[in-house]
This record gives sequence, C-alpha cells and structure tokens, in this order.
Amino acid sequence: MRKVLVVYSGGLDSYTLLNKALKEFDEVSAITFNYGQKHKKEIDYAIANCKKLSIAHEVIDLPLTGLLSGSALVGDSEIPEGNYDKDKMKLTVVPNRNMIMISVAASMAIRDQASHLWYAAHAGDHEIYPDCRPEFILKLKEVLEICDYHKISFEAPFQDLSKAEIVAEGLSMNLDYHDAWTCYEGGLKPCLKCSACLERKGAFEFNNAIDPLK
Amino acid sequence: MRKVLVVYSGGLDSYTLLNKALKEFDEVSAITFNYGQKHKKEIDYAIANCKKLSIAHEVIDLPLTGLLSGSALVGDSEIPEGNYDKDKMKLTVVPNRNMIMISVAASMAIRDQASHLWYAAHAGDHEIYPDCRPEFILKLKEVLEICDYHKISFEAPFQDLSKAEIVAEGLSMNLDYHDAWTCYEGGLKPCLKCSACLERKGAFEFNNAIDPLK
Repeated sequence: MRKVLVVYSGGLDSYTLLNKALKEFDEVSAITFNYGQKHKKEIDYAIANCKKLSIAHEVIDLPLTGLLSGSALVGDSEIPEGNYDKDKMKLTVVPNRNMIMISVAASMAIRDQASHLWYAAHAGDHEIYPDCRPEFILKLKEVLEICDYHKISFEAPFQDLSKAEIVAEGLSMNLDYHDAWTCYEGGLKPCLKCSACLERKGAFEFNNAIDPLK
Repeated sequence: MRKVLVVYSGGLDSYTLLNKALKEFDEVSAITFNYGQKHKKEIDYAIANCKKLSIAHEVIDLPLTGLLSGSALVGDSEIPEGNYDKDKMKLTVVPNRNMIMISVAASMAIRDQASHLWYAAHAGDHEIYPDCRPEFILKLKEVLEICDYHKISFEAPFQDLSKAEIVAEGLSMNLDYHDAWTCYEGGLKPCLKCSACLERKGAFEFNNAIDPLK
C-alpha cells in the first residue's frame, strides 16, 4: 500500500502538497511542527484543514528555541519587512532546522510504516536556505533510505517549482486557498508587507488569480 | 582552528571519545541529550565530567517520548536482561533516533562554527541498529557537509572498533573509567545483568583489566 506522511506547516506550499498527496496515495497522514515560530496561526490552519479533510494529524512540539538564538522566526527580533535581500532572509535561518524536522518526521513515518515522506521545499527556497537545495534533498533522501530496516522514500515533489507554479497546480486542483495561511505576522488578516505575503501576492498575480485571503 | 563538538552520553564509548578529542583538537565542547531514557544517571556523569575537564557542555531536552512508544529505553517497559538477542535489542530501538540527535547536534555545531562533529558509534552497534551502520554514518556525513554554508565534518572515529578496542584505547590514555556510567538500570551500582553491563564486563576482561566501577 502506498502510504505517505506529509510535513505540513499550514502554509500554501504544504497545503497544496497535502492535497496532491490525497490524489496520489492510498493513505495520507500529516505532521506539523511547533518549533517556537511566531506565526502559530498556520498551525491552527493545519489542524483545521486536517480535520476537514479527515487526515490523521499530529502536531509535534519541537522546542528548538534554546538552540535558535539569532533567528527572527523565534524570540523577540522583528520580522524583516519587504522582499528579502540575502542578509534579511538569513535572519530567519535556523541552522539545519529542516533536517531536524525531517528526521523527526522520518521517525514517525517508520513507526507508522509509511512508504513515503513528503516535504514541500520549492525552487524559490534554494538560493538562501542551504537546507532546501536539491543536492541537500537528494543526500537526505539517500540517508533516509538506510536509516532503518523499513525503507522510506523521501521526496520533495515541488523542488523544481516556483511558488507561482505551485499555486497554478493548486488552482488546477480547485483548491480553496482560504485554507492556507502564509503571513509571518499571524494577525487577523495577512499584513501584505512581510516577504511571505509579497511572495504569495506575486504567485497569485502570475496566475491572474485573486487570493481569497487578501 | 580545529574545534569539535562531541555527542557525549556519559557512557563509556563517548567518554573515551571525548578524551580522544581533547588530545586532537584546539577546542572541545560537548552535547548530551535527555531524550527520556531511563538511565538518566549517565547524564549526571556527563555533567560532572565536563565540569571536571572544563569542557563547555549543554544538556538538551529532546522530549521524544511521544514519538517513541514501543521503546524500552523510555517509558514503562522493562529493560531486557542478559545478552541481547536480536528481538530483545530491538526493544531499545527508537526509529531514527540517532539521526534526530545528530541533526540537533549539527545545528549547534554550526551555531558555534565548529569544524567537526564527533559521535561514538562503534562496530558492536552495527548489526542491530541500522542507524549505527558505517553506510549510514557515511551518508549522514555527506548530508551534513551541505546542510549549511558552514561546513561540518561529521566523524565516528570508533566506527570500526569493538567495545574492547575502545577500552584498550582509553586504558592507553590512562582514562579512569570510574567516570563513565554504563548500566541501563541506573541504580547505585551497576546491575551487572543488563546487556550494557555484560558488554562492558567483556570489554574489560578482554583487556585483562579490572573495571573500577564494578
């Protein structure tokens, strides 16, 4: 049986991936990490959507805060506004964060005897985040194939897509992007100023589509 | 500058590795994980030894308990006595536990700009624990080389040594194995019945040496 565990943040990319998984697998479950990020609102979205879609879902507390001094995704630093330049984006980089989360997800995938582990890294992440690069994903795939006697196929199906192309795929699946939270600020409505909001805006504009959350 | 972070449990193998690191590196720090194991006593040993050796040391709480149902190293199951046969040893296997711990250690090694990350897997671990096998260590080394722009060299210097050979190396360094805790039970004295005690006993006997903790 093809059974996938999807690393699902509650954001747009992994929401699209989760729905793609529902089309391609016999069984789908999801894992969301609460690692001390400011934008906890996306976790609420993840919980609500998994309930709506009847997907088995676990939210894992991963208290990385102690490790992560210097990251603007946790703690008290301000989230940089505007399109990220490299220096600004580095503020949101936690060393090796993705590998930590994927290692934990793999543990659960093995426990559940899943055949696949899916992760929503996309092409726009590559330049700044070393742990989103295709070569990192490939090497991680290789290590996850042998980390246990139960073999897990680790895949990042969107690794060659831009965010605009991910939205295009979601729109072709008739996804309702009301159900995906993106803004780093986590207010009542998206701030439309942070880099995540601006990227999302650009992705909908590219598709000549209107963002329902706007 | 050569700077190493050592994954140090408080046990015999990593105690020996820590002391080897002190001889070979300009700067040594250590990380110990509290992942819900029953034998917390080894953590006390790790803390005491790092203090004695003036090594910067962090104990990281990694509450894997929720993930780890079915493991005898955490929770309420009994620790199997005697030499492990394969089935018994599997009770102490947490899927992908080592990769989780090493991923977190790598995050800290990158934060501290260490050049190396050392880990005390040894040849006796290979057969039962898939995440101690040399091929796993090699693949993990490859992924850790590219997980960040700061390059970390991940090494398991004892991967080809038996526990007896590790003890031989420690004795040749005049290590005092009073300072290494091994027993899974974590009582006042080693139980001398659990597999960890029996392995340690065999290692000292092989070297015609007396275990000072006995």
